[in-house]
Order: sequence, then structure tokens, then C-alpha cells
Amino acid sequence: MSSTASPSDAFEADFLIHPEWLVPMTEKGLILKGHSLAIRHHEIVAVGPTETLKLACSASREITLPNHVLIPGLINAHGHAPMTLFRGYADDMPLQPWLEQKIWPAEGKWVSEEFVRDGAALAIAEMLRGGTTAFTDMYFFPDEVAKVAIEANIRVQLASPILDFPTVFAQDAEEYIHKATDLNDRYKNNGHVQVAFGPHAPYTVSDAPLTKISMLANELEIPIHIHLHENAREVLQSEQNTGIRPLERLNRLGLMSQLLQCVHATQLNDDEIALLADAGATVVHCPASNAGLASGICRTQALLDAGVNLCLGTDGAASNNELNMINEMRMAALFGKAGIENAAATSAWDVLAMATVGGARAFGREDTLGTLETGKFADCVAVDLGTINCQPVYDAVSTLVYSAQASQVSHVWVNGRLNVENGRLLTLDTAMLLETAGDWARKIG
Amino acid sequence: MSSTASPSDAFEADFLIHPEWLVPMTEKGLILKGHSLAIRHHEIVAVGPTETLKLACSASREITLPNHVLIPGLINAHGHAPMTLFRGYADDMPLQPWLEQKIWPAEGKWVSEEFVRDGAALAIAEMLRGGTTAFTDMYFFPDEVAKVAIEANIRVQLASPILDFPTVFAQDAEEYIHKATDLNDRYKNNGHVQVAFGPHAPYTVSDAPLTKISMLANELEIPIHIHLHENAREVLQSEQNTGIRPLERLNRLGLMSQLLQCVHATQLNDDEIALLADAGATVVHCPASNAGLASGICRTQALLDAGVNLCLGTDGAASNNELNMINEMRMAALFGKAGIENAAATSAWDVLAMATVGGARAFGREDTLGTLETGKFADCVAVDLGTINCQPVYDAVSTLVYSAQASQVSHVWVNGRLNVENGRLLTLDTAMLLETAGDWARKIG
Repeated sequence: MSSTASPSDAFEADFLIHPEWLVPMTEKGLILKGHSLAIRHHEIVAVGPTETLKLACSASREITLPNHVLIPGLINAHGHAPMTLFRGYADDMPLQPWLEQKIWPAEGKWVSEEFVRDGAALAIAEMLRGGTTAFTDMYFFPDEVAKVAIEANIRVQLASPILDFPTVFAQDAEEYIHKATDLNDRYKNNGHVQVAFGPHAPYTVSDAPLTKISMLANELEIPIHIHLHENAREVLQSEQNTGIRPLERLNRLGLMSQLLQCVHATQLNDDEIALLADAGATVVHCPASNAGLASGICRTQALLDAGVNLCLGTDGAASNNELNMINEMRMAALFGKAGIENAAATSAWDVLAMATVGGARAFGREDTLGTLETGKFADCVAVDLGTINCQPVYDAVSTLVYSAQASQVSHVWVNGRLNVENGRLLTLDTAMLLETAGDWARKIG
Repeated sequence: MSSTASPSDAFEADFLIHPEWLVPMTEKGLILKGHSLAIRHHEIVAVGPTETLKLACSASREITLPNHVLIPGLINAHGHAPMTLFRGYADDMPLQPWLEQKIWPAEGKWVSEEFVRDGAALAIAEMLRGGTTAFTDMYFFPDEVAKVAIEANIRVQLASPILDFPTVFAQDAEEYIHKATDLNDRYKNNGHVQVAFGPHAPYTVSDAPLTKISMLANELEIPIHIHLHENAREVLQSEQNTGIRPLERLNRLGLMSQLLQCVHATQLNDDEIALLADAGATVVHCPASNAGLASGICRTQALLDAGVNLCLGTDGAASNNELNMINEMRMAALFGKAGIENAAATSAWDVLAMATVGGARAFGREDTLGTLETGKFADCVAVDLGTINCQPVYDAVSTLVYSAQASQVSHVWVNGRLNVENGRLLTLDTAMLLETAGDWARKIG
């Protein structure tokens, strides 16, 4: 990789970045020292030895990061950004009362376009500040989320919600699907926004709309993002109602393909893992939410062994309660070990791969996102490991995953533009967000 | 509690603190607003309504903390501070190769009084910065740890190590025990340092020294701190070698009392939980280390239900890899739910109690530590919840446990003295610690 990065001719760049460690994520275990990265316009234009690039590159800005690790932007592959306004609203409750007594009534009362805009802005601020450069959002009024994302300069996959029953957003499956295809028409050439079908779950969407979604997804070549096998109860009820498990039902309805993003998937048997691997489908692992809602523990090592594409999501702040991909990586590694009593399972490198290349692959964008390589979009994150809680550094990736805090993210570039500089968020007004969140809390609480 | 805190007469104080939320931990669910806390010399001298205290109290310094929660100092009840120099040295490895191929050889080569001092200083800096005001240390050369702790103004319980076999610290059980009683003689009247017997584990200390430790602990009224039922293998081997489980062996040897601190305890059956409850013994829960080493998941809710005293420890940075009690609380809550698939289990309040009053009780100091009450030592921590990642705040304790980062700890008092102010550590030289850690990493790595 660094061979592509030793330009013999002089070139110009907007940024030339000199981190202590550069982790391109092009191969497991590769940590480059004495290497730099150059950005021009939207792209990474060079990765190579610092001395070489210093000679060849004429950069508008050189940024030296003496204690920092530079990694690809983190991809938060599942969430409900507007629900950030419900963060901490109903903790320590079992799933059903949590949904039925707290979350659904609150959503019924408060969700509006304004709620979605304000909640999304708060979520995006937290995500950018913590090194997330792309996220999935599955919520009502996705157009509003798209507007905020574009303005704040973060990439988003909008999983446009689809349900059998009416909500404030649509009346029936037909209308939800229509809204999703409409949304896709509007954003299909947008570099920041991509659209997926977001059927909520097997138990809230019936066979006819699922079949239609499958057909349209293949035709439009856009992903399907669905909560699947979140907990044992869901699987049991499906077996009672349909005679088969939800994943098998999706398979029979034609959804099993590389376009499928299965969120949670804490309940998978060996056959199901083999089926996911054969289809090239993705599992979106949400360890903190699975733990907080006591849904079960995802079999990450078995999925890795089978070659299933794994990525990582925080889920919404109502169940997590943070949109913090550094902590989420640590959670994935720890639950990956604890779940099968094997301390070598689901390593720091594995979870960093989930949070970068795994997310890019799920989004169908492994050609442009997920690694630090010449020609890819310049989505890059620097994390300052020069703090007491990270010393000593024997392996920068271990330190990043197991010791660093999100507050140590110092610089974030999305699409070649600097969003976070020395820990300060540049693209959103933090003071205004704090005020707006306070206003909502007073109304809702 | 606040009734004891409305002094009718004027009084003087060193600090009068006005937090947004004050969580005294005197009763579950109690969050005081519009309340303040006064410190004079080593003690909390008043907790009461802000208006009342402002009238009555003449304070050298008033500190207004407009977005902060004030809590009792966090007690990290188990660790090996000097091993911080091995942080990240050998991650993602199974327990036995981790110990046999990496940790033990490295300890054999590097552990010395200087190593202990430098490692302890690094650990203490991280702990203070993250709101820990007291910790247990189980390591060689405990005198060195004590010196650093006193200088840095943090409380420590020294679990003086005891083994059957020789190390750099002592030759046989007799000598280890002698060193522990000697240590206790030196520190028995010290407010910052207390001594416990630290038999390493049932499988490294034989019956005769355990019996002697039990006798001496009762005589001297000092705790016994031991790794116990850390994983299934330990229990199985005991059953094979002795015919009984380790906890039953300790019981027969007379160790089961309120002086006993059982560290890890991931393998407990109902009878053992009942036995611990009857004896008034403590379980020191180390969720991140248990997960990282894939040891098992502690039955926290069952222990809480049985009334066993539970406290919280990070373990050493070689297995965690952070000495971060805020993250440790979150881990305890999440593993407490995931382990039994009950989202209501092991709540935010439960884990904050473990990290404060539970630790104080384990140390035999519930009369002077663990809560914010008039007459207790002034060990207090303020955490700034006014950050994007904590909005909105519906319940300050939920926000603290599930959303806050250790970097948000703004102020830390130990024994009435300010150790951390606006996030800056006052009692240790951070720049020098970073340099020293780098030196060790170059030598060891």
C-alpha cells in the first residue's frame, strides 16, 4: 500500500498530516510509523513515508500529530439519531415495559420534523466529536436527518422506515415503501447521503411488503436494513406464529443477499451463520444496546470465522446511552470474549475492522470508504494517545480500543474537510445544541 | 440527611461547593438540587440548601459547578497499580499463555522498587483524574505504593501479597505474612493507608498460611483480600485436588467473615451466595477484567438480592486496560443485565452504590467514607454533565453511569484537599509521568 504512496512528481494538497502511528486498515496488524497522509479536495492523494511526502508535496496546511494514531473514519452502522432526545429517559427497564410504557408513548407525543432535526443534530455532534464519519439512521422523517447531515458534513445511510401500521410518518406499508423510493430518487447522486429500505423487523412487516422490498432493493441496488433476531422472544414468537425462524422467513421471501444488513442478530445457530456467509449478508453488531436491553450476546467470533461481514452500531441513545464508537469497539471485544469464554476471541484489530472496513462493505462502498488509501474519500480520524490513561503504548490499536476515551479524538476529516480540530467541533454550534436539548428535556421530562 | 445540614449558627469552611446535582448516596434515588456542600479541614461540615449555607457559611473558596453532579469519591476496590506499566503489553490472549508467556516473565525481569513506584504513580494519576479517591493495591513492595499514595493524596488499602513460593519480595509464606504484619504496624494510624492480608488465591496459598492469616486478621481486625472463584478452571482444579470448591475450603479454614474480600467471584452457586451473605463478606466485582480474560460473568443481581456487600474494582491495567471507575460502573450494569437477560437488573444506582458505599464497607470504613454526609471525610468528586454526549439529563445518575466519560471529571477532593481542578491534576507531575512511562515502554517493549 505504501508503494502506491511515493509520488516521484511534486503535487499539491490541502492537508499533509504527520501522525505518530498510521493505521490504514488495509491489512490486519499493519501500523505505519514515520508515515504521512495527504488530502486534496475530497480525496486521499498519498500515503507514504514522511520524508518522501515532505519533499514531494506542497500542502496548504501541515498538521503534526506527535502522540496520535490516524485511522479511517469510524462507521456507526446502526442507530436512531433523533432518539438522542430520549437519552436516559427510561433506563434499567425490561424491553417490553421500556417500549410500551415509555418510548412508544413519548414518541407518539413528541415526534415531529422539528424533533427529528434537533435530535439528529445533537446525535451528529456527538458522533463527529467521537470520530464517527458515517452513520446509519433508521427513523421517521429521514429527509430532515439528511439535511442536518449534509450541513454538518457527515455521511449517512438513511434506512427509510417501513411498517405495516400507521404512524405520524405514513399510513401503510405501501406509503412507507413509496417514501423510501422517493427518498432514494432524491439522494441517489449525493456523496453524503445514501438510502436503504428500513423494514423495522420481521414481526412488524408482513410477507407482501417484505417481498416487494426485496424486489425493489435488487432493482435499485440499495441495501435492506432490518432489526433481526434481536432476542430469543422474537425468534420464539416467529416459530409459534409462522413455524419458522425470522431469518428463514426472510430467506424464503428472497431477502438473503449481500444487500441485507441484519441488525443485532444475537440469536444465530450455525446453519444461519452459514446462510449469512453464503449470501454475503452483513451483521450489524450493537453490543452495548444488546447488553442494556438484555437481548443476548452476538456470536461475533463464529461470524468472523465463517467470513460473515460484521460491522458495528451504537443503536439509539435511548438504549445505549452513548453514540461512542470507541467505547462500542471495546464493548464488542469484551462481549466477544465473555460470550464464549475465550480471551483471544474478537480482538482489538477485529473490532476496528468492524468499525471501518466492515461498515464500508455493508454500505456497498468498500471502493471509496473504510481504509486510508490513495484514491479513497478522505474520511480520517486522529486520536491523541498521549494521555495518562493510555500509557504506555505498546500497540496503538490495542490502546485505541481498550484504553482511549472518545474525548481524545482530536481531528476528524470527512470528505477532505476538517470537522473537528483539536477536539473542537467546527460544523455545528455546540452551545445552541446544549440549549435546544435542555428545552426538549424540560418538555419531555 | 439534609435536616442535619441547616446550621443555624455561622461557621467557617475551606470550600463551599454548589453543584447542579448532589447525590449523597445515603438513600437510593436521592438526587438533591439547590443543595451545597461545605468542607473544613478533612471533613464535610455541612450538606444543605444552598441559600441556607450561603447565609451561614463563611468559605475561603466558593465553587459553583453549574452542570455538574457531585458524588462521593469512587473506590476502586481491586487492582495492581504498578502493573499499569504493562498496560496493552499482551492483549487478546487466553489467561494461561497471557500469564505464563507474557506477564510472569515480564514481572520476573522488570519488577523492582523503582518499577513499583513509577507504575503506581502512573496508576494513581489516572485514578485521581477519573474520580477515584481510594483504591486497593495488591502488589509487591507495598511500602513504595504507600509512599506515592500519601504524596499524591489518595487513600489506599494495601493488600500485602502472600504466596507459598519465593518472589523478588519474599521467600516463603512465613516471610510474606511477616511483611504484612510489619506493614500494618507502620500504617495502622494513617488516615490514607490501611493494610489487608493479600493471599493471592486459594491455588497459590496452602492451608497452613491461610489458617494463620485468618487468625491474625481477626486479631488485628484487618481485611483479607483474595482472588477467589475467578474462573471455572480454578474451581474445577480445586474440586479435583481437594474434593471441595475453593470457597468451601476458605470457609473450613475459618476465613469466612466480614473481613473477607472475595475478588472476581464469577463462579458462585446459590449456597455460596447465601454463605457470603451470612458471613457479611464482600465480593469485589471486576467486570471488564472478567470479560477481557473471559473468566465468566459475576451474578451481581443474585448477590444484591441476597444482601452480599458488593464493590467494584478495575483490576490491573494489564487485564482491563483502564483504571476508569466510570466505565467500570457502566460495565457492571451492562454485564449485570446481559448475564441474566434482565434489563432491570443491576441498575445505575446499584453500581454507583458498589463504587461508593460498597467500597467503604469492604474497607471497614463505612463510618467515615462512601457518602456525602456531615462528619465524613471530604472525599468528593464533581463530574461535568454539560457536554453534548450527556444531553439531555433526565436522571443525573443514569447520565453519569451510562453516558459520561472519565475525562468529564472536573474536581476531586480527597481528605478535604483539592486534587483535581477543572480537569487538571494538581498532586502529580503529568509531564514527568508521561516521560517515565515512555522510558519503561522502550525498555520492556
